[in-house]
Amino acid sequence: MEDFDIQHIQAAAERLSGYITRTPIIESPMLDAACGCNVYVKAESLQRTGSFKIRGALNKMLSLDADSLGRGVVTYSAGNHGQGVAAGARLIGCPAVIVLPTTAAAIKIESCRWWGAEIVLYDPDTQEREQVARQLMEARGLTFIPPFDDYDIMAGQGSAGLEICEQLEARGVAPDAILVNCSGGGLASGVITAVKSRWPRIEAHIVEPAGFEKMARSLASGVPQRNDPVPKTVMDGIAGPVAGTRPLHVLLRHEVKGLGVNDEEALRAVSTAFRLLKLVVEPGGAASLAALLENKADLAGKTVVAICSGGNVDPGVYARALAGQ
Amino acid sequence: MEDFDIQHIQAAAERLSGYITRTPIIESPMLDAACGCNVYVKAESLQRTGSFKIRGALNKMLSLDADSLGRGVVTYSAGNHGQGVAAGARLIGCPAVIVLPTTAAAIKIESCRWWGAEIVLYDPDTQEREQVARQLMEARGLTFIPPFDDYDIMAGQGSAGLEICEQLEARGVAPDAILVNCSGGGLASGVITAVKSRWPRIEAHIVEPAGFEKMARSLASGVPQRNDPVPKTVMDGIAGPVAGTRPLHVLLRHEVKGLGVNDEEALRAVSTAFRLLKLVVEPGGAASLAALLENKADLAGKTVVAICSGGNVDPGVYARALAGQ
Repeated sequence: MEDFDIQHIQAAAERLSGYITRTPIIESPMLDAACGCNVYVKAESLQRTGSFKIRGALNKMLSLDADSLGRGVVTYSAGNHGQGVAAGARLIGCPAVIVLPTTAAAIKIESCRWWGAEIVLYDPDTQEREQVARQLMEARGLTFIPPFDDYDIMAGQGSAGLEICEQLEARGVAPDAILVNCSGGGLASGVITAVKSRWPRIEAHIVEPAGFEKMARSLASGVPQRNDPVPKTVMDGIAGPVAGTRPLHVLLRHEVKGLGVNDEEALRAVSTAFRLLKLVVEPGGAASLAALLENKADLAGKTVVAICSGGNVDPGVYARALAGQ
Repeated sequence: MEDFDIQHIQAAAERLSGYITRTPIIESPMLDAACGCNVYVKAESLQRTGSFKIRGALNKMLSLDADSLGRGVVTYSAGNHGQGVAAGARLIGCPAVIVLPTTAAAIKIESCRWWGAEIVLYDPDTQEREQVARQLMEARGLTFIPPFDDYDIMAGQGSAGLEICEQLEARGVAPDAILVNCSGGGLASGVITAVKSRWPRIEAHIVEPAGFEKMARSLASGVPQRNDPVPKTVMDGIAGPVAGTRPLHVLLRHEVKGLGVNDEEALRAVSTAFRLLKLVVEPGGAASLAALLENKADLAGKTVVAICSGGNVDPGVYARALAGQ
């Protein structure tokens, strides 16, 4: 397995410069009081397409040779990764195909189409998405853009971590801990590698849906674990079935602690972000914030970074979060 | 009347540096498509206290001599201005008194108290808030912090305009037009002075609640006009009774056009900011965005700046905005 380090992330950040948004870090004394620590929120919800995913997708595309780019890319997510692939491909003029089940929500299909992606529908009762994508790769020479288990993807996501380093250093702040929402581990492995290279003693926490901590179990066992069945959770952005092999490999180099939050806690954090930060955050994107608000780690009085990783939330779910307060 | 110009705003920006947030400018290709022009949104909703108001309030306080600062300041708003005064005073260690009616919403009183302000309640049936404030000024030597009709306030608000100039120039963008939400005119006069000094030919639009365009009427008549009765509107942030004399005086130097949006249009813009920008914007803060979305001005294909001036919105109103879509 080829190696992955801070140079990989620095190269990604340079490649991505000009294409992505340098998202702001938001502070709030009221949030600090609510969490009992000094919190810096990295607002990746304000990233193009409303989540960090475009960083990795675009870094992968920009790493391809001209012929591959000309033929195009394919993926099979209609969620944040699919939107990132579709929007990233449009930014650099690369054809993109998104493979979706015929049962996909119309709004997600429309959104991928809006970015100019070609949609290939398959019948989930009779076909596997992996097979549909493989046929397209073979027939048309498309390159698959994986969601997380890939060093270029991880390096792209890690560029958010480099920004955190630069933004906090500019303020003269050295954080004691960082909390990163985690599913496959692309964001967590990239960001933790980046911040550990600047602050080797920073405490790193990953946050997953409570009861479905596949990455925490993977870290404990040293082998990628699955959530089977996949969790039924409002945190859909971090509810994938499997921990990534390469992200796990990288996370195992560091002392990473796992935290879990439940749906109610995530929705409360969504509401808190509405009230105190004026940020629209999706439940899975608010998991780190929820862990802080619910004191899941012993961080009283410390200086902490939490990543709000996405803001793509159904209006009905959002209204439910607000009504819960 | 002393004069007001770009030097006043530059001095304010220097004074405020380190105390306030340099709020980001947000772009979205989907928003551009919805508006039919290239839109740069200045997200003052992400400013400390959730609105631009702390800029002016803090600039006014920082302009006071040490004795006055030591005695403290007073104002009588529980809305965005009051929050700005309370939070600004705390940042610089200045005592602040907020005069509020006994009928004020508990959450607003609590929020002012949270920032450390002293609350003085009055009975709105038997007392005038101006008189209560005046008594405090005389008895305790407090300085009144006005909401808009003051050059230091206007200069502070104008610092948002200077940031727009710097942020767009850094991107190589020269805008054709700017839209600013307007009530008393503090923000509009400051921001328009700032951007006109950089781009003298920029089109300047102010946006008010439709049917209650007191500043547009003031600009037409040359004399400050009132809304009597004050509008019943969901855009409470821009529903004050009177146009400011000094803001009007400054706005009259420029060719400023007035636009109006109704409640339904403002709520639609709140929902659009949720979906496409992931920003929590209050209805009055979304008026400029609403004017763009509803094509209130002839700006097709142009490069336009809209200020989202605040994000302090009741969760019930917000849910209503989302449900309307």
